[in-house]
Amino acid sequence: MAFIKIPTKGMRDLGPRDMLLREYVLGVMKDTYQDYGFELIETPCVEHIENLTNKVGGDNEKLIYKVLKRGEKLDFDNASKVDDLVDSGLRYDLTVPLTRFYANSMNELQSPFRSFQTGRVWRADRPQKGRYREFVQCDLDIFGEKTNLAEIELMSAVITFLKKLNFEGFQIRINDRRILKKMVLFCGFLESDADSILISLDKLDKIGMDGVYDELIRHGYEMDKVNKFLGFFCENLSLEEFCLQFQMDEDVVKNLREIMNYTKEVTGASLFFDPTLVRGMGYYTGPIFEIMVSDYASSIGGGGRYDEMVSKYANVSVPACGFSVGFERLIMLLEERGFEVPLTKKRVAIVIQEKNTDVFLKARSMRDENMIVKVVYRSKNYKHQKEVLEANGYHILEM
Amino acid sequence: MAFIKIPTKGMRDLGPRDMLLREYVLGVMKDTYQDYGFELIETPCVEHIENLTNKVGGDNEKLIYKVLKRGEKLDFDNASKVDDLVDSGLRYDLTVPLTRFYANSMNELQSPFRSFQTGRVWRADRPQKGRYREFVQCDLDIFGEKTNLAEIELMSAVITFLKKLNFEGFQIRINDRRILKKMVLFCGFLESDADSILISLDKLDKIGMDGVYDELIRHGYEMDKVNKFLGFFCENLSLEEFCLQFQMDEDVVKNLREIMNYTKEVTGASLFFDPTLVRGMGYYTGPIFEIMVSDYASSIGGGGRYDEMVSKYANVSVPACGFSVGFERLIMLLEERGFEVPLTKKRVAIVIQEKNTDVFLKARSMRDENMIVKVVYRSKNYKHQKEVLEANGYHILEM
Repeated sequence: MAFIKIPTKGMRDLGPRDMLLREYVLGVMKDTYQDYGFELIETPCVEHIENLTNKVGGDNEKLIYKVLKRGEKLDFDNASKVDDLVDSGLRYDLTVPLTRFYANSMNELQSPFRSFQTGRVWRADRPQKGRYREFVQCDLDIFGEKTNLAEIELMSAVITFLKKLNFEGFQIRINDRRILKKMVLFCGFLESDADSILISLDKLDKIGMDGVYDELIRHGYEMDKVNKFLGFFCENLSLEEFCLQFQMDEDVVKNLREIMNYTKEVTGASLFFDPTLVRGMGYYTGPIFEIMVSDYASSIGGGGRYDEMVSKYANVSVPACGFSVGFERLIMLLEERGFEVPLTKKRVAIVIQEKNTDVFLKARSMRDENMIVKVVYRSKNYKHQKEVLEANGYHILEM
Repeated sequence: MAFIKIPTKGMRDLGPRDMLLREYVLGVMKDTYQDYGFELIETPCVEHIENLTNKVGGDNEKLIYKVLKRGEKLDFDNASKVDDLVDSGLRYDLTVPLTRFYANSMNELQSPFRSFQTGRVWRADRPQKGRYREFVQCDLDIFGEKTNLAEIELMSAVITFLKKLNFEGFQIRINDRRILKKMVLFCGFLESDADSILISLDKLDKIGMDGVYDELIRHGYEMDKVNKFLGFFCENLSLEEFCLQFQMDEDVVKNLREIMNYTKEVTGASLFFDPTLVRGMGYYTGPIFEIMVSDYASSIGGGGRYDEMVSKYANVSVPACGFSVGFERLIMLLEERGFEVPLTKKRVAIVIQEKNTDVFLKARSMRDENMIVKVVYRSKNYKHQKEVLEANGYHILEM
């Protein structure tokens, strides 16, 4: 069979220049998150097909890379459908394996457990600019902390990470799923309609208030209720004023205000209450948040509280809260903004015409002094060789 | 469908303790290899099935995790065999994607190119102690350096890495494929028999000299020739004395001697010529080497020159040489030897009964001073909580 030189569809090779930036960002992230006591874990890329197709993953479940059974278990002749041939798949996010890991290992872990996971995930999505079928996710989660200490520490860790990168111009939108739900009920909708209504509201950024209105009407909701519901969003009110309109539970308001105040005071970051923030995933149960930047339409990270998730998987109730940074988007933005990785080590190319022991001893001692050193033979076109080395940051030492 | 809490067969979750060691070792490795000018690259985990099944991978090709086609391309009804449903698979090593990457990108890379790749690979092997179906490989390779400068720099980088870990008691065996081939011909075997004879010799560690003899006779080789061939290995001779017996090309001997001398002088490591070293992979063309340790039967790393590999894939001839450390084996040995990761940062748990700004400001300033700090609520069983925190290296600060 022919050898194919390009990567598989929608995937990419990452060369030295790509990796320099990615490793730097990942290094700053690891360092920061570890300072907050988050502990790195890793889970297999291959997950049970049962765990990937249990409806919690929503649309992602349509995009799974499925893995064939192996050996005797792979019985093509007696298979009546494709799924008879499959026992596993590539993970489409880090949340499914994290929850599996936590359910399986919780007795050996500290409680509360501060988890940090980074790794590749796969989705057979339509490839487009900046969207790949294999990409890196970076998830922070706290299990077992029911108070907003979890939210405050998560926020603070992520903001500190972005600040250490000198990443400017981001703001954090914050809301609470319970506020959205209360509004829906207060306007006279049924509780069972809440998800559908919030899915429409979530499109506000894309289709505008008129678009949301049209969609809700098209879905058959009464005009009076829709007007009442969308009317809340027209005035620019503080969290407290906003919530007063529909007699929101004061504890929820106070909880959110605390998260905002503490995070502002400790990090200096810009946070604001945004009642239109929904976030897609259905599993959120409390505060939700998202990082937005001025020069990019989508968010570059977000998260929230999902207290009922672990119990769905594992028959035990554990409060949980997570914050995930969109690693690929962050890298893309840093590249677009012309971010330069600080080169802390001096680079030296020792150019030789003949080997001798002194060359290698010199290289060793320079490496011991924290320099990057490579020994290379002088090539026929030395002028060109020098140019390439210097363009790559190498100083030349002829020996 | 039921939720499954354990990982897929032969794979494992890596918890905080596992990750602490692995991250430390990987950090030392990255630091060391980068000091030698090796540049990190990454390739997709999913590779074209054509590239994985082109016979270069030997037995590994039987162990591939195959990935189903997706969407319309997945046509179960018209498939006459399983392979009609497959377009890709998980990589079983890093060499196949590295060669693909190099063939695809060589015009944009420095020459010689010093490549460093680390990542997960998958083999559906029978799981056993210390052998998993998903594991990490770490490969160093130099493309475009035809002289033994490549071998010397690779050896030196790997040895320096092991020394930085204070990893004691390793030796490096070294040989050259051309010496083995010359011996085979000198004894009167056909060139086409060389691979088969070397495969038998490669079993020396496991079945002993008598076992190798029996196997060669069983394979139908003449007793005279077998005796002559194996006779060479009975005396303990220097490289030069050994090679004199069958009029080995002096350049090959000199080349190997240089590698040994320079590496010894520069690193102080223990190297020795071992004429029985074969190494399994058929693609080696010159010097080969392997790291052995006293407390483990198999090697913990190895490599060699494979000048004809790139041309097989990419229609262009590029000299190449690689050295790979068996990451999982190294981790296993470090654990068995009781290796302790040096904890460079002080760990503090701020235990609170109530939140206030001072708590978070204190945490921030301690993190700025390079400490690991987590803020936790005092639990009902404070005695137990303290014990667990202290067992995890945390100092307690009550606030």
